Amino acid sequence: MPQIETILTPALFHLHHKNLDEKQVVVIDILRATTTMVVAYENGAKNVIPVESLEEAFKHKAPGVILAGERNGVKVDAFDLGNSPQEFTRDVVEGKTIVISTTNGTKAIEACAGAKYRYISSFRNFTAMVNQLIENNCDVLLFCAGWKDKFNLEDTIFAGAIVEKLGENGFEINDDASIMARSLWQSAKSDLAGFLANASHVKRFKTLHIESDLEVCLKFDSFVLLLAYRLMGL
Amino acid sequence: MPQIETILTPALFHLHHKNLDEKQVVVIDILRATTTMVVAYENGAKNVIPVESLEEAFKHKAPGVILAGERNGVKVDAFDLGNSPQEFTRDVVEGKTIVISTTNGTKAIEACAGAKYRYISSFRNFTAMVNQLIENNCDVLLFCAGWKDKFNLEDTIFAGAIVEKLGENGFEINDDASIMARSLWQSAKSDLAGFLANASHVKRFKTLHIESDLEVCLKFDSFVLLLAYRLMGL
Repeated sequence: MPQIETILTPALFHLHHKNLDEKQVVVIDILRATTTMVVAYENGAKNVIPVESLEEAFKHKAPGVILAGERNGVKVDAFDLGNSPQEFTRDVVEGKTIVISTTNGTKAIEACAGAKYRYISSFRNFTAMVNQLIENNCDVLLFCAGWKDKFNLEDTIFAGAIVEKLGENGFEINDDASIMARSLWQSAKSDLAGFLANASHVKRFKTLHIESDLEVCLKFDSFVLLLAYRLMGL
Repeated sequence: MPQIETILTPALFHLHHKNLDEKQVVVIDILRATTTMVVAYENGAKNVIPVESLEEAFKHKAPGVILAGERNGVKVDAFDLGNSPQEFTRDVVEGKTIVISTTNGTKAIEACAGAKYRYISSFRNFTAMVNQLIENNCDVLLFCAGWKDKFNLEDTIFAGAIVEKLGENGFEINDDASIMARSLWQSAKSDLAGFLANASHVKRFKTLHIESDLEVCLKFDSFVLLLAYRLMGL
């Protein structure tokens, strides 16, 4: 029976990278990198390429390529877009290639480059993600991007939602972090925004005046496609 | 207002060690190191000295000194006792000095040596611990020892019980890990043993045939004293 493990922050990734090439990894950065990437595809982006460093992003600069990203939650000055999903509207991204670099999410994506499958997920494509994990029928790593190596609530809650569904479909929950994440999700799901009201990221959002992103990032199943590295050949 | 942060595993300690000398740190290794140390004092031990390495423990070997500890949950062969609280009975430990080294707990105790106060805590002296933290009225770090740098449920649940009480007494909850721990505690407290039934440590206990330790480790407030480094001059 396939097993589930949850990585609470990138600082704990080294404890889970054994046999990575046999596992399917879901990278989770709900506020906001993985949500923003999903929104870009929702609005017709041709390709979204996550890169770890700003330097690497600049190397992709070309006509028809949009550079996007943030450091410490703030748009990189020389880039076209920041990391707010609300910037990635259809008129801006349709048909375009987007190269994106963020404080936490894109680093996590790089870290698990050796995985059998790497998926980018958010609440917006939750069901598509879960169905694919079940279909693949191999061990799952839920990789929370956190904030600068710290644990965060929203990524863990999302991981917990996946644990719950996979558990109902016969996957074995193999670590305490997954049990915790599922419990947290079950406590939070009836009022996600309320539960997150005191979360560190949400406080940071208030400081940065980007509270309206939260609603976008907590929206369920607005998109039916996956963001899969292997399948898309990124 | 004093703030609370929770360290989910020793691998995340480096994110929290700023201004350690102004903070009070509670080291938590419910299964079993910190519980066992509390039980030793309950049963009249004169002194319990945690040390990180087995070599250091051997250096303390002398008449009237008991060497105790485990690696991977199993008693160290050359030692007098393992790490089961049930071994630390009054007839064995009364009036004795105990030197103890364990896989996770004693390492965490060493790591925060620079703290203003270092406390060893367990469910067995929960209320004494909380009252002292409130009286000290300075920032609190709840330091979960985990298992080989991995997150674990029982330490986090205990941290959550402390977060709840301190929050009710005006302490500010300063990170997502503390919010999560409190939520976890609130989900688990009505049936701690049941909630922990699938925890990795509990499974390990079953493998090692030491299930009866669990009841000892989850007992509330059997002891009214603190284990404080500073106060005891350890």
